[in-house]
Amino acid sequence: MECIMPKSPCGWVKKITVPAPSLQDNTADAERVFGALKPALSNGTVSFDMSLLRNLPGLLRKNDGEFNCTLCRRQDHWTVLDLSPADDPAPPIGAAIDLGTSRVVLRLVDLISGDVLSESSFDNPQIAIGPDILARIHHAAEKGGLAALQTLIVNPLNREIAALCHSCGRVPEDLLLAAVAGNTAMTHLFMGLDPQWIIREPYIPVVNRPDLVKAIDLGLKLNPRARVFIFPNIGSYFGGDLIAGILYAGLHQKEETAIMVDVGTNAEVVLGNRNWLIACAGAAGPALEGGVTKIGMMAGPGVIDKVQRVPGSRQLRISTIDDLPPVGICGSGVIDLAAALFMSGMLDIRGKLVPEQCDGRIRYQAELAHFVLVKEEDSGIGRDLTISQADLDSLIRSKAAMYTILETISQSVGTALPDLASFYVAGTFGSFINPRAAISIGMLPDLPLTAYHSLGNSSLGGATHYLTHADCLAEIDSIRDSITYLELNVNQDFMNRFSAAKFLPHTNAALFPSVAREES
Amino acid sequence: MECIMPKSPCGWVKKITVPAPSLQDNTADAERVFGALKPALSNGTVSFDMSLLRNLPGLLRKNDGEFNCTLCRRQDHWTVLDLSPADDPAPPIGAAIDLGTSRVVLRLVDLISGDVLSESSFDNPQIAIGPDILARIHHAAEKGGLAALQTLIVNPLNREIAALCHSCGRVPEDLLLAAVAGNTAMTHLFMGLDPQWIIREPYIPVVNRPDLVKAIDLGLKLNPRARVFIFPNIGSYFGGDLIAGILYAGLHQKEETAIMVDVGTNAEVVLGNRNWLIACAGAAGPALEGGVTKIGMMAGPGVIDKVQRVPGSRQLRISTIDDLPPVGICGSGVIDLAAALFMSGMLDIRGKLVPEQCDGRIRYQAELAHFVLVKEEDSGIGRDLTISQADLDSLIRSKAAMYTILETISQSVGTALPDLASFYVAGTFGSFINPRAAISIGMLPDLPLTAYHSLGNSSLGGATHYLTHADCLAEIDSIRDSITYLELNVNQDFMNRFSAAKFLPHTNAALFPSVAREES
Repeated sequence: MECIMPKSPCGWVKKITVPAPSLQDNTADAERVFGALKPALSNGTVSFDMSLLRNLPGLLRKNDGEFNCTLCRRQDHWTVLDLSPADDPAPPIGAAIDLGTSRVVLRLVDLISGDVLSESSFDNPQIAIGPDILARIHHAAEKGGLAALQTLIVNPLNREIAALCHSCGRVPEDLLLAAVAGNTAMTHLFMGLDPQWIIREPYIPVVNRPDLVKAIDLGLKLNPRARVFIFPNIGSYFGGDLIAGILYAGLHQKEETAIMVDVGTNAEVVLGNRNWLIACAGAAGPALEGGVTKIGMMAGPGVIDKVQRVPGSRQLRISTIDDLPPVGICGSGVIDLAAALFMSGMLDIRGKLVPEQCDGRIRYQAELAHFVLVKEEDSGIGRDLTISQADLDSLIRSKAAMYTILETISQSVGTALPDLASFYVAGTFGSFINPRAAISIGMLPDLPLTAYHSLGNSSLGGATHYLTHADCLAEIDSIRDSITYLELNVNQDFMNRFSAAKFLPHTNAALFPSVAREES
Repeated sequence: MECIMPKSPCGWVKKITVPAPSLQDNTADAERVFGALKPALSNGTVSFDMSLLRNLPGLLRKNDGEFNCTLCRRQDHWTVLDLSPADDPAPPIGAAIDLGTSRVVLRLVDLISGDVLSESSFDNPQIAIGPDILARIHHAAEKGGLAALQTLIVNPLNREIAALCHSCGRVPEDLLLAAVAGNTAMTHLFMGLDPQWIIREPYIPVVNRPDLVKAIDLGLKLNPRARVFIFPNIGSYFGGDLIAGILYAGLHQKEETAIMVDVGTNAEVVLGNRNWLIACAGAAGPALEGGVTKIGMMAGPGVIDKVQRVPGSRQLRISTIDDLPPVGICGSGVIDLAAALFMSGMLDIRGKLVPEQCDGRIRYQAELAHFVLVKEEDSGIGRDLTISQADLDSLIRSKAAMYTILETISQSVGTALPDLASFYVAGTFGSFINPRAAISIGMLPDLPLTAYHSLGNSSLGGATHYLTHADCLAEIDSIRDSITYLELNVNQDFMNRFSAAKFLPHTNAALFPSVAREES
């Protein structure tokens, strides 16, 4: 009797034909809808929200039996979120949200076609409480602090969602589903869950799998029946943003072993294939302080983001954002610069500037060597633009830390870095890194450049993937459950590796066969 | 590690030991509770309400690991409603509610021991809108009518629940679960669901299985996480009150075929055993109008509720409620009276008064014979207390209707009425009927008196059963699913049976061997 055709690749919206009641079949309205849905749902049970039940008789009798039914799923239980006439021109929409510590990115998705409708981002206003998550967690422990932090993230989300809907000619009531990926502390603050035990030994979150939550229970002003999927975490150090990233990269589905590095506030690494996944986070003790993301300044107009060496010479070509006179250098620019300096012999294998190779571009301030990258007359700041030996030392520590972590995690499972089939770099910063330069300084392993893939915002990508794949919950659970978390043990062995990685590209040059330095 | 002992016969409250977290096991708080619960739950998944999750870290760390965990269940999904220290002296409580068209009865139950804590009842204030359900359904279709009707039932429920809790030294926040049984229209009004399609062909409810609903979604002021179980209906004519009644009587579990008659606003009949159930409702067309419950007046002080014949004579002994001077006669009294009049020859087999046998106790008003039951000087109303031939005719039609329905339903499955092992009479009215008198006039079949059982308020009994048996949901579903609803077809065959049953006790005296009338 019912003609079921899944209307969408996303799978949230089922096209159903609800049979009219008769004296021979006096099944109630709700159960007739359930019956029509049954062939479309692989298994499990279905329920209605009371608010939809209250509209159901009128809705069913005003239309001719053809409906789009939007559902969400929790394990084997489906909840009907909305029922609209099949010819309704406005499809239900979903919101993918990357809940970053510094920046929040959101994206509206058509829940039928899976098309991205629009996207926007804003600085996380919790920065006012504390730029890093630790300060916020301490603030949450104060009276009213947690509620204030939750409001600080939920209110602007409501504003941005409303604006984003408006820009597409829609209203927040059309939003039936949201998918949120963030680190463990951020998702706790978002849900109003006490985060204080996350930072105290033994580092315990309130919940690992928040699963589906009602939007109104979080203060989100979407459709009153809207549900919010919050990506699961593994613990304090491994959040839903990374699970979302793995989902997006598809690491868990590949035959060959691949690695994903998410260069966000922390640097997190996941290694694996469809049989196993192992992960670790870069916040691994004082040796690694600083981190990859602390290199250089934030990208912005006039900031140097690329540095290239004129082949066969010591001349450098710089590119700035928007082609403006240079005002500073960002992380990807610093990596490029270090590679260029090293490849042309201006930097030695210890990462120290070699004044006699630098053609008079070295200045000293308080006995500290500075390399003049842009002269006063060409710069946008009215003076020489320089990089100091201290900045370069910091880069060397960071690149050594990165390589050591990559080496440690791969050795822990007996995989050699050169054997990796694919290397995914996630995160906004990661998407600007030039792998060739990063290989040259020994920050990333010497794989063919074709093995490197930039994922961009993989957390947002994973959240979007959830919205466009109604059946991926089991996949997400299986990712979560299959990850082995490697606690980085900063022992002598680790420190030995770290010391070796502090050379350019490495004390063991055989690890970097492609790095052929021009000897001067 | 966890020592699980189901703490209660009810099964809602599990005693669990939540292990402390460690660096070796950094599972989140919620998932540690899930883990501790797992051995106590046969199967399925578990989730927390956001509000409980927000209290969880403090709760777990304030106590020593032993908790009482109260859960509710929806198919294979459990929801944690509350977690309290194992030594909490105040057990969680539940409320059983019989949502009657005329009267609402509620009962508080200890969800650990299953003990009934207290009970109260109140007239359904929706009576002000309309004494019968039809008037209310019409009112619900008017603007604001449905909301007004819902408020009319929810507000006094909140008041009564608060008062009942107070009387036990408790507060409504201690109430975690409610079970509500009512007819289909009443439960729809209670949920704020549009009931108008229930009374229009083809008579379609909004929902058959409302299942578990959040108390706050219904406006009930219990614990903010409390859930309300609403008994399922089969359709417009067969409500959750009857499903609750079957559950309470245990009809669905018995080897031998039994019958249950619920004499409420309608007279509903269920026949069956553990293999099958068949049901019909007494609202079966104009022939039966009036119904059994319309006989006599409401029971109250001074109302005659029993009439006995002094054996071997035509003298009648009456009993009144509270032994006050008689002011009227209620239904059970009328049946007693008719039996006494018939057995002593004052009423003939057609149910007509026989003046010459009545020793001068007949008066005429507008040519209508009246039997003087109590003389002016003995009555509490300052005049003779009489019953008219019209009243008796009405009784005869009602008793004939009842017997015809019983005969029709039993013949539909090939069971003879005398073969019934048990005959359950439910409903407040039913609990006062004297089976001997009802048999004498041919209202009930001629079974041994030991076969008759009065159930009292079986709807409330079933709701209480739910609260004391956490595992009975499948049983309730199976009752609902196994009932065949017999649409009473008022055809010639039915009318022939009805005509035969209009005699006292019946045209076929062989059906009533125990009725030995004293011939005058």
